[in-house]
Amino acid sequence: MASVVWGLVAGFFTYETTKSVVVKSWSVGIINRIVQLLIITYFVGWVFIHEKAYQVTDTGIESSVMTKVKGFGYQNNRVMDVADYVVPSQGSTMFCILTKIIMTENQFQGVCPESSDKFSCDRDENCTKWLGSNLSNGVITGKCLKSFNESRGHCEIEGWCPAENDQVKIKPMLDVENFTIFIKNSIRFPLFNVTRGNFPSTMTSAEIKKCTYHPVSAPFCPIFRVGDVLQDTGHNVSELAAKGGEIGINIEWKCNLDQDIEYCVPKYFFTKLDAPFAKNSISTGYNFRFAKYFKTENGTEFRTLHKAYAIRFDILVTGNAGRFSTIPTLISLVTAFTSVGLGSVLCDIILLNFLKGAEQYKAKKFEEVTEAQIEACITPSPGSQLSLRPGVKSSCDSGAISLSPSD
Amino acid sequence: MASVVWGLVAGFFTYETTKSVVVKSWSVGIINRIVQLLIITYFVGWVFIHEKAYQVTDTGIESSVMTKVKGFGYQNNRVMDVADYVVPSQGSTMFCILTKIIMTENQFQGVCPESSDKFSCDRDENCTKWLGSNLSNGVITGKCLKSFNESRGHCEIEGWCPAENDQVKIKPMLDVENFTIFIKNSIRFPLFNVTRGNFPSTMTSAEIKKCTYHPVSAPFCPIFRVGDVLQDTGHNVSELAAKGGEIGINIEWKCNLDQDIEYCVPKYFFTKLDAPFAKNSISTGYNFRFAKYFKTENGTEFRTLHKAYAIRFDILVTGNAGRFSTIPTLISLVTAFTSVGLGSVLCDIILLNFLKGAEQYKAKKFEEVTEAQIEACITPSPGSQLSLRPGVKSSCDSGAISLSPSD
Amino acid sequence: MASVVWGLVAGFFTYETTKSVVVKSWSVGIINRIVQLLIITYFVGWVFIHEKAYQVTDTGIESSVMTKVKGFGYQNNRVMDVADYVVPSQGSTMFCILTKIIMTENQFQGVCPESSDKFSCDRDENCTKWLGSNLSNGVITGKCLKSFNESRGHCEIEGWCPAENDQVKIKPMLDVENFTIFIKNSIRFPLFNVTRGNFPSTMTSAEIKKCTYHPVSAPFCPIFRVGDVLQDTGHNVSELAAKGGEIGINIEWKCNLDQDIEYCVPKYFFTKLDAPFAKNSISTGYNFRFAKYFKTENGTEFRTLHKAYAIRFDILVTGNAGRFSTIPTLISLVTAFTSVGLGSVLCDIILLNFLKGAEQYKAKKFEEVTEAQIEACITPSPGSQLSLRPGVKSSCDSGAISLSPSD
Repeated sequence: MASVVWGLVAGFFTYETTKSVVVKSWSVGIINRIVQLLIITYFVGWVFIHEKAYQVTDTGIESSVMTKVKGFGYQNNRVMDVADYVVPSQGSTMFCILTKIIMTENQFQGVCPESSDKFSCDRDENCTKWLGSNLSNGVITGKCLKSFNESRGHCEIEGWCPAENDQVKIKPMLDVENFTIFIKNSIRFPLFNVTRGNFPSTMTSAEIKKCTYHPVSAPFCPIFRVGDVLQDTGHNVSELAAKGGEIGINIEWKCNLDQDIEYCVPKYFFTKLDAPFAKNSISTGYNFRFAKYFKTENGTEFRTLHKAYAIRFDILVTGNAGRFSTIPTLISLVTAFTSVGLGSVLCDIILLNFLKGAEQYKAKKFEEVTEAQIEACITPSPGSQLSLRPGVKSSCDSGAISLSPSD
Repeated sequence: MASVVWGLVAGFFTYETTKSVVVKSWSVGIINRIVQLLIITYFVGWVFIHEKAYQVTDTGIESSVMTKVKGFGYQNNRVMDVADYVVPSQGSTMFCILTKIIMTENQFQGVCPESSDKFSCDRDENCTKWLGSNLSNGVITGKCLKSFNESRGHCEIEGWCPAENDQVKIKPMLDVENFTIFIKNSIRFPLFNVTRGNFPSTMTSAEIKKCTYHPVSAPFCPIFRVGDVLQDTGHNVSELAAKGGEIGINIEWKCNLDQDIEYCVPKYFFTKLDAPFAKNSISTGYNFRFAKYFKTENGTEFRTLHKAYAIRFDILVTGNAGRFSTIPTLISLVTAFTSVGLGSVLCDIILLNFLKGAEQYKAKKFEEVTEAQIEACITPSPGSQLSLRPGVKSSCDSGAISLSPSD
Repeated sequence: MASVVWGLVAGFFTYETTKSVVVKSWSVGIINRIVQLLIITYFVGWVFIHEKAYQVTDTGIESSVMTKVKGFGYQNNRVMDVADYVVPSQGSTMFCILTKIIMTENQFQGVCPESSDKFSCDRDENCTKWLGSNLSNGVITGKCLKSFNESRGHCEIEGWCPAENDQVKIKPMLDVENFTIFIKNSIRFPLFNVTRGNFPSTMTSAEIKKCTYHPVSAPFCPIFRVGDVLQDTGHNVSELAAKGGEIGINIEWKCNLDQDIEYCVPKYFFTKLDAPFAKNSISTGYNFRFAKYFKTENGTEFRTLHKAYAIRFDILVTGNAGRFSTIPTLISLVTAFTSVGLGSVLCDIILLNFLKGAEQYKAKKFEEVTEAQIEACITPSPGSQLSLRPGVKSSCDSGAISLSPSD
């Protein structure tokens, strides 16, 4: 019993290694080493150094943005300040600078004629076709309102009157070019619990107040001149101010956390967000409507409707951070080692097919066993044994010669 | 010296390949090829074609959304237009359509009785228990205000008076069903620097103005009828308009950038965002309070408090893009090759245990070396050599026979 | 012809397995098993159990947040309610609680002197240097306005007059501490189409109304006391209320979807969002300006400018979910198996270099073939054959002995 257990234990603590054939041939040897060198170079240079396959990457960036606009502009003969032209006022990820406002003052609820010539009419039938339309300035009642003596009039609407006329020519606020945007962006990589801000902690308050962002000379200054940003995107400022538009301020964080944390800095770039729609003629520009509400002495509400053409800024923060981690390293390393091994597939093909003496190499590498052969060993009739050539006898047990000096 | 270096160089340029046993057996041969076929089929079909394991994926989508609502509705006998019912007005990722507004007009700072019966009282003690409550319409002073001759009254509050009474019955704006939402969504995959818009660049302005989104007949039309969206989520429009609610408009981008970029198109679907809370009785619906401020002639500020029930739309953009990349391809390929190799583990088990002649195959595959054997070789006493059976002699150096024709 | 095809088919259905050397040595055997055990332990314990390398992970979380603040506070001798101090009012991911408001009432368009001493002057030249400045309260005209009899005055500005004086001392609204924030967060993992809410579906309306979040005793209560949140971030409430600040409420979802879905619950934590800027003296605090617009009887617009110091809350939702998937499991498994195989590299080094009898083991493991040897086999001149030692003859065809009992 004990000897059986001992045998099993001894059988367990053995070491199995592959039997190899070492081919001392210059041609295959050199090809082998060159292939190995190429594979190793590829892995070290591209996979490890360039692609950093030994790192785990966090792409779920957590970001908080605070913005503040500064500057004064003229619009409708009034000086506009931040409280007037920045919407929404909280200074968040998205904000608009109103550059042209078409105001329709003193609107009261009631009925009145449409303003647009699209809704001109000479009898009620011209207006009933517009019933339920969303394109008017109010609910189309179906009546045609004509002034005394005139042959054509406009359809009647119910709603806020008088109707807005957005065809008036108004000079946009071109001063927007000189406005500045201060951006405070703090990010966090939750996987690594690393927090960073978009300007260095060594920057003093005075330095920040004076600087203006420039991609080369002041890449970390958090104050952006609107004119510079627009120019970078290739926009024509006066056209943009007149029609409105959407600008993306991309803040890109690409951090290698195996390096010093101080190298984890943002990169800014600026894009036209409506670029994918450049070919469609619709919806160039950006505008929206809002109203300010007032009350008359006797309590009736009235409003000033604003159709605001605005430059909308979207601060888009993206980023990823990498840090050494054992699992990707292991997977990459094992892949690398195995790939080096796979290199031998190529060499095998060359060795066994294209080299002089390929048949001999084949004979060396492969040891054939056929079923017939095995059968012959299982049923060793004395006669058949004799029929074998001398020296071949060992083929039944070659390699299993358990050489025990004791016997 | 030179010959030593030469020896090292020659030793380096060798090629080592594993010695293999080729088993010419139908049973194992067929099993082997079937296992290999299964593994290869799995890798080609599932891993490569279906799961696209040869691609690197970018999930950090960058998105910008512009929305515009159109339509008119009646509320409190007034016609409401976009400037009245869309909050916030900028047309961003999130916007609310106010469907029911409970207005409390002409509120001034002061003291007054609570409106809710929850705060009814017959003496001050009934009110002091509410001190510091957040559920009232103002700061509870602790006094009980009773009209002359009445036995019960309401607790006094300090704040904006008169207190809001949100129990009034108001007809919600059911016209919301016919409103339309225009969504302009431009995205970017930063890893590949690919930019896309949510409607094809071949769509003309006229086409866009006329169409309405339909999952089958108009899947790329960017104009959505609110009624369709609500119906798709399974909402009852009149209930939603009365209580408010949160709707998610998901825009899903799944792009295979190895194909033509024109196939990179969005898919829309609509969800109830409060679905996870369906079982909790709390907070069904969605409402918030805001105020409009006015001034009397003598400069006193007063306000109109709005409790607004709204349908809130959240445009949720998700997506990922894949493009061929060498590293995942390599890892997958090496995994595939190695897996094919691992298939031989199964065959080995069959060959060495369950096949007729297993012992013989084992003998062929494994060559045993014991410590004793090695020891015998190291210390070759003439006598011990003799004790070996003839023909076994070669076991000390088999395979290492350096055959040099020169000797 | 048929026999050739038959030969090819028979050649195809063969099984090739590596020939192995089994070393029955205690030392190498034990080292081998220990190395294998270590590698397996590492993979099972760290890679599979701890790092869950068998899962595919979804990091593109889709989130929707609804917030509602409750509470009353005193400011400028007025009671402020939610409609007064929460901006924006919709209760979205980001909201501000205004804690200190500096109001400049009755501003009309016109010209007036600056308020700040920074713009004091004794002649026009002192003011012309400020032309184009963004730091004033309006457009600097370049004039120096001096009261009769005084030597020093202030520069003239054009814009909203009178100019704001933000140096006034105002008591912040410290009641903010007792405000409560209700957060409703529903998330979705698009990859798995799993939707979750931030409080359990078993929580009743009454339970939610009564509870207050506490990390230990009430970790799933969705109602947060502002004072608790601020304390957790280490903020001094009175300082924060006076200067404003940015607070992050992080909701972290880490879900193992192989477990019951009920274990997929959020974790909350609270951070100072301006922590990365703690060292910069600039921009501590948070404030923004907005205006309320009024009209006089004769229709002139005037405004009340508000410089609002606010506590801004950003609800930052992050998360990832993992679920068993075949591809990462396969890759990890293959990596594990291959790594176990790589363990033999270490054993080989020990076996072939440091063990007693290393040369003998080497002889066993490696079978050398030289080009000369192969050449000798290819050109078998009778004489050269004789020059070989007897018994070595088989080196030309060893392993390729095709043993056919029929011959």
